[in-house]
Amino acid sequence: MAETDALSAPSHPLIASDRIEGTAVFDASGKRIGAIKRLVIEKISGQVVYAVTAFGGFMGAGSETYTIPWEQLRYDTKLHGYHTTITAGHLRQAPEFSRRDEALLSGHERQQLNDFYAEPMP
Amino acid sequence: MAETDALSAPSHPLIASDRIEGTAVFDASGKRIGAIKRLVIEKISGQVVYAVTAFGGFMGAGSETYTIPWEQLRYDTKLHGYHTTITAGHLRQAPEFSRRDEALLSGHERQQLNDFYAEPMP
Repeated sequence: MAETDALSAPSHPLIASDRIEGTAVFDASGKRIGAIKRLVIEKISGQVVYAVTAFGGFMGAGSETYTIPWEQLRYDTKLHGYHTTITAGHLRQAPEFSRRDEALLSGHERQQLNDFYAEPMP
Repeated sequence: MAETDALSAPSHPLIASDRIEGTAVFDASGKRIGAIKRLVIEKISGQVVYAVTAFGGFMGAGSETYTIPWEQLRYDTKLHGYHTTITAGHLRQAPEFSRRDEALLSGHERQQLNDFYAEPMP
């Protein structure tokens, strides 16, 4: 088996930190809507706290990057990717800082993001 | 600030999954003994379960790879790296499968590894 396969086998319950990029994200109906670019981890606890995710970009259009809280992702062992109930409506109203790709969030920004996605969309 | 810095600032409590490689590992006396190659994460919980770490190799000698349980690492916010009480004696007796670099561990191997490092060295 090639090294890449052994470190990112879709059916394995574990994944290596350097093989996370490209993991699929699905909407509530099971449609593929994005892919994880990176996970961000708390250095002390070793817990993932959010995912930087590229949404869209599958029909020739460009993708857009949004940071979403880990709590909004549920791993689906059949689809080998993450389900989310986040909608296009959420993303349109997401805080501006969560559209940046180039920096780690502050504690205040993390709280703001959790609160934003915890609210149901009208 | 360059993108690399913003995603791996040493003093920030978070780190991006694609910036983990090279994080330092120190022994009980504070001497640098290795560097993390990758963390391995549970897909469902988002919890880091072990670290694939290169030990040695700082004085021109080659480094050797060992998988060590997350419980054996403590983040040190002053040193910007992980402390471990694992010794050269441990590594010499470590299970053979934990010296492989190319595969994810099974549940049985994880348990065996946790048990091995939980025992104090004679």
